[in-house]
Amino acid sequence: MYEGVNASEGIGIGKVVVAVEPDLSFTPTTVEDTAAERARYGRALEAFIKKTEKQADHLCRTIGEQEAEIMQGHIAMANDPGLLDEINRLIDSGVMAEQALTEATTMFENMFLSMDDEMFRLRATDVADIRTGILAQLLGKEIVDLSTLPAGSVVAVHDLTPSMTATIDKDNVVGIVTETGGRTSHSAIIARALEIPAVLSVVNCCAAMRRGTTAIVDGTCGVVILDPDEKTLAEYTKKAEEFAAEKAELERFRGQPTKTADGIEKIIGANIGNPDDAVAAMEHDAEAIGLFRTEFLFMDAKQLPSEDEQFEAYKKAAVTAKGASVIIRTLDVGGDKEIAYLHMKKEDNPFMGYRAVRYCLGNPDQYKVQLRALLRASAFGKIMIMIPLVTAVEEVRAVKALVEECKAELRDKNIEFNEDIKVGVMMETPSASLIADRLACEADFFSIGTNDLIGYTMCADRGNDRVGYLYSVYYPSVLRSIKNIIECGVRAGIMVGMCGEAAADPLLEPLLISFGLEEFSMSAPSVLRARKTISLWTKKEADELAERALACSTIEEVKAILTEAAR
Amino acid sequence: MYEGVNASEGIGIGKVVVAVEPDLSFTPTTVEDTAAERARYGRALEAFIKKTEKQADHLCRTIGEQEAEIMQGHIAMANDPGLLDEINRLIDSGVMAEQALTEATTMFENMFLSMDDEMFRLRATDVADIRTGILAQLLGKEIVDLSTLPAGSVVAVHDLTPSMTATIDKDNVVGIVTETGGRTSHSAIIARALEIPAVLSVVNCCAAMRRGTTAIVDGTCGVVILDPDEKTLAEYTKKAEEFAAEKAELERFRGQPTKTADGIEKIIGANIGNPDDAVAAMEHDAEAIGLFRTEFLFMDAKQLPSEDEQFEAYKKAAVTAKGASVIIRTLDVGGDKEIAYLHMKKEDNPFMGYRAVRYCLGNPDQYKVQLRALLRASAFGKIMIMIPLVTAVEEVRAVKALVEECKAELRDKNIEFNEDIKVGVMMETPSASLIADRLACEADFFSIGTNDLIGYTMCADRGNDRVGYLYSVYYPSVLRSIKNIIECGVRAGIMVGMCGEAAADPLLEPLLISFGLEEFSMSAPSVLRARKTISLWTKKEADELAERALACSTIEEVKAILTEAAR
Repeated sequence: MYEGVNASEGIGIGKVVVAVEPDLSFTPTTVEDTAAERARYGRALEAFIKKTEKQADHLCRTIGEQEAEIMQGHIAMANDPGLLDEINRLIDSGVMAEQALTEATTMFENMFLSMDDEMFRLRATDVADIRTGILAQLLGKEIVDLSTLPAGSVVAVHDLTPSMTATIDKDNVVGIVTETGGRTSHSAIIARALEIPAVLSVVNCCAAMRRGTTAIVDGTCGVVILDPDEKTLAEYTKKAEEFAAEKAELERFRGQPTKTADGIEKIIGANIGNPDDAVAAMEHDAEAIGLFRTEFLFMDAKQLPSEDEQFEAYKKAAVTAKGASVIIRTLDVGGDKEIAYLHMKKEDNPFMGYRAVRYCLGNPDQYKVQLRALLRASAFGKIMIMIPLVTAVEEVRAVKALVEECKAELRDKNIEFNEDIKVGVMMETPSASLIADRLACEADFFSIGTNDLIGYTMCADRGNDRVGYLYSVYYPSVLRSIKNIIECGVRAGIMVGMCGEAAADPLLEPLLISFGLEEFSMSAPSVLRARKTISLWTKKEADELAERALACSTIEEVKAILTEAAR
Repeated sequence: MYEGVNASEGIGIGKVVVAVEPDLSFTPTTVEDTAAERARYGRALEAFIKKTEKQADHLCRTIGEQEAEIMQGHIAMANDPGLLDEINRLIDSGVMAEQALTEATTMFENMFLSMDDEMFRLRATDVADIRTGILAQLLGKEIVDLSTLPAGSVVAVHDLTPSMTATIDKDNVVGIVTETGGRTSHSAIIARALEIPAVLSVVNCCAAMRRGTTAIVDGTCGVVILDPDEKTLAEYTKKAEEFAAEKAELERFRGQPTKTADGIEKIIGANIGNPDDAVAAMEHDAEAIGLFRTEFLFMDAKQLPSEDEQFEAYKKAAVTAKGASVIIRTLDVGGDKEIAYLHMKKEDNPFMGYRAVRYCLGNPDQYKVQLRALLRASAFGKIMIMIPLVTAVEEVRAVKALVEECKAELRDKNIEFNEDIKVGVMMETPSASLIADRLACEADFFSIGTNDLIGYTMCADRGNDRVGYLYSVYYPSVLRSIKNIIECGVRAGIMVGMCGEAAADPLLEPLLISFGLEEFSMSAPSVLRARKTISLWTKKEADELAERALACSTIEEVKAILTEAAR
C-alpha cells in the first residue's frame, strides 16, 4: 500500500502499465550540409505539429476546449520565430538539429524557470514537453502514447506531461499514479477533467509497480494498493461500484432545474478564478457564476492589468455564461493574498488590516479601472458587481458613487454598458451581519462569504492549526449569523446567495433552504451533488431540522443532529 | 512655546524655578584610618535614611501609601547588607567613602540596567537616586529640595527623581516641566498623583527657562508657553479657572453613590494592572475593581509566577478593595501580549490565534495554578473570575469544570475559599455577542471588553493606522452588539459590566444607561467624571437618545446625535 496526493476522486481497479519515457539521447556531431539539416529540422517540426494538432482535437472532444488550448499553445511555442531563429543560427554554425533544439529550448526553459512566478514555471514545463516531442521526431522514437493501452489500465508514470495526457483514452485508463505533482498540477487538473481516479507524488511508484500487476487506485483517499488480497479487492470493487452508482445517480440531475422536494426553485452557481474556469463551470452544469475571484488576474501579472485586459477577461466570463448571472468580486487584495507590485505594507494582523474594499476605496483611481472594465463587460452578459469585506453602509455608498462616476465617463464616450448593473455586498464580516437589514437597503444582492465570516465571528485564522477547532460553520453563533443575513436579505426582497465552501455542504444545505437562501455557489464538480441534496428536502422538513439545530448550544450537538438527518 | 508630553492634565501658571542638581564631584584620595572612614559613611547613611523617612512620611500624607513605598524601598536598598559589605570591603582596602559608594552602587546599577526588563531598569534609577542622596550627605551638599519653593512655582528640572518628587509641596508647585520621561515614567505618575500639571520631555527646557520668568504649563495639551503676552495669559487664566471649577465640581461627587438622575443605582469600577493600582483606584473613589488584568504578574516575571505569588497578589487586591467586588481576568496572553518564557509560536494573525482562554484551556495544569490562587484569595474579599476571549459555550463549561476540580483539591487540603465564587465571561468577540443569551445561562456575570469587541466586529486591528477609521465604538453594528449583550445579560438576571475604554466615554454613557449596564469600569482618574455624567441622565432621556442613535445608518450620524446631546 502506497500513499500519495488524492488528486482525482474515485476508485480505479486494473492492471499496471508503467509508461517508460523513451531514450532520447544522441551523440553530437558537426554538420556540413547546414541547408539539409535545416530541412530535417523543418520536417520534424512539421510532424510534431501535425501530431499535436491531432492531440488537441482529441482533447477537445474528450475533455474540453480549455485543455485543448494547452496543446494549441505548444504549437504556437514550437512555431515561435525567436526559437526558430536561434535553432537555425545554431545549425548554420555547424550544430546538428538535435543539439540546436536542445540548446535553444533549454535557454528558454531556464529563462522561464528563473522567473519568480508560478505561471512562468508552468511555461518551462511546456517548453520541456515541446523539446521531448520534436526530439522524438528527429530521432525517430515514439514518445509515450497512452491511446493504445488495453482497457482497464492503471498508468504509472514519473510525470504526466500535457502531451502524454493528450493521448489518454478515458475508456482504457482506469487509474493514474505519478511520482510528482500536487492537487493543482496539470496532471491533477487533467485527471479530474477526465474523471480518472489519480494518486500523485507516490515516491518511486515506477520502480515499485510492475507491468501486469493488479492495482487499486483510491483517488478519494490518496492510496494505491498493489496485489490486493481477495477481501481487499472485493471491498474496493464494492466501493468502486458505489462510487459509479452515485455518479450515475448524479447524472440524472444534469440539465435539470434545481428545486427542493416541494418545488421551490434554487440556483446552483460555480465559483471561478479566471474566465477559462467558466467553461468548466458550464460543463459541470452550473446555472450561474456565483463568484468570480478577480485576484488571479492581478496575481498572474507583473503590473496592474489594464482596463482592456480586465474588460476582455470579464467579457469572456460573461459570454461563456450565456446569459446566466456572473457575480464578479472586485479586487480582494491583502489578508493572505499578496500582490508584489502593489508594495503593500506588512501588517501585524493582515486579516484585520488594509485589504479588499478598504484598499480599493483608498485607491479610487485604480479601483475605477476595474469598475469601468466591469461596466463595459456588462454589455455582453449578466455581470453583477460584488464588494468584498464590507463592514459599514458608508463603504457600499462610496463604491456605488464610484460606479456612477464610471457610468458617466462611459456615457460621455458612448461606450455601451448595462445601466441596471447590480451592485451587491459580500457578507463576510460580523459588522455586516449585525447591520444586514441596513445593508439590504443599499445593496442589490447579498452573497455570504462563509470562509471569512466564520473566521471573523470565531476570531480564528483559518490558516492557524492551533485554533482550527474553532473554525467551523456549525458553531451556533455562526449559524445564527448566516440565518440573520439570509432573512434580512429575503425580507428586503433582494437575491441572497452563498459563495463560501459551506454552500456545498450537504449537512448545511437543509438549513440554508430553511433560511431562504436562493443561490448556492460552489466549486464546479459539486454542482450535481448539491442539486440532488436540495431535491431531497421540503421547506417544512428543512424548517423542522433548522429549529432543532438552532436550539443547540454546542457544536457537538449541532453536528450530531445534522449528521443524523443527512440525506 | 515649547511642546512636550502631556503627562498630567490641567493648566498651571507661575514663575519659573530651575532646579539645578548639586555638584557632587570629589577627588579620590587614599584612606589611612579605615575605621574612621567606615564611621563617616555610617553617619552619612544614617542622615540619608532619616531624611528619606521624612520624605516617605511627607509623601504618604500628600499623595498616598503607594508612592511612599518607593521611598521605603530606597531605605531598604541603602541598608542592603550586600551593598554595605561591598562598601566596607572597598573602604578597608583604602578607598574613600565617596568612591566606595560610587563604585558599589554603579556595579548594582549596571547589573539592573543589563536586565532586559522594565522593572529592573526602574530599579537602576532608584540606585542612582540613593547614590546621589548619600553622596550629598558625605559631601555636605543639599540636593534639590522642592519643599521650600515659593508659592506659584513652575519647576523646570532635567529629570524628576523619586527623592525630588518626595519633597514637592503641592501648595507651592503649580507646574512641572522636565527634559526626560514619558506618560508612564515615575515623574508622570507622581505629577498625576499630586494633580500638578506636567509637560515632560521638553528638549533643553532647563537652558531655555530662566528663573522668575512667567510660564504657562498646559499639561492637557503638552505645551509650555514662556513670557506669554497679556491676551494669552488671560486666555489661559480663564482655562485654568474652568479646569479648577470642573475639578471642584467633580469633587462634589466624591463619596457619593452613583445614580442616574432618576435614581437608578450604578457601580463605577476601576481597571487595574497590579494590586498596587487597587490603592489608587480606591483613592479615586472607585466602587469596585471592574477589571484586574493579570498579564502584568506574568510579564514582569522571568518564569511562571507560583501559586503563592499569584495568591498574594490577588489577595492584596481583594483586601485593598475592602469588600467591593474585584473582577480578575485570567491570563490573556497572546494577541499583542507576548511573554517570552512561554515560547509561543509566531502567528500570521495573532489577534485571531492561540490566545487567552484558548491558551489556558490548552495548558490546563498551568491554568489551574491561577485558578487555585484565585480561589484561595477569594477567602479574603469579593473576587470574581473572568474568562477572556470566549467564543463558545463549551469554553465556559470547560473553565467551570476546572474551577470545580480546583475547589475539590482545596477542600481536600482544608484550604479556605469562597464556595460561591462567581465565574463570568468577558464579552469581546462577535461569536459571544451572537450567543449572549446562551452564555448568560452559563455565566454568573458579563463584562463587555469593548476594545477587542470593536476590533473583531469591524475586522480592524486597533494597532493598524490604515484601518483606524474603522476602529470606533460609534458604528451602528458595534452599538447593536453592545445593546444585545447588555439586554441578554439583564434578561437573564446577571450583572453586566463594561471594562473597555468606552465605559468612560461621556457620549456613550447615556446609551449604556438605556441598555441597562450596571457596572462601568475605567481608568481610576475618570471615576468622578463618569459619576457626574451618569447623574445627569434619566432612563427615559437616555432611552430617547438611544432610540435616535440606533436609528442611524452611518457613524457620522451617530456621532452628530451623541455630540449634540452630550451633557
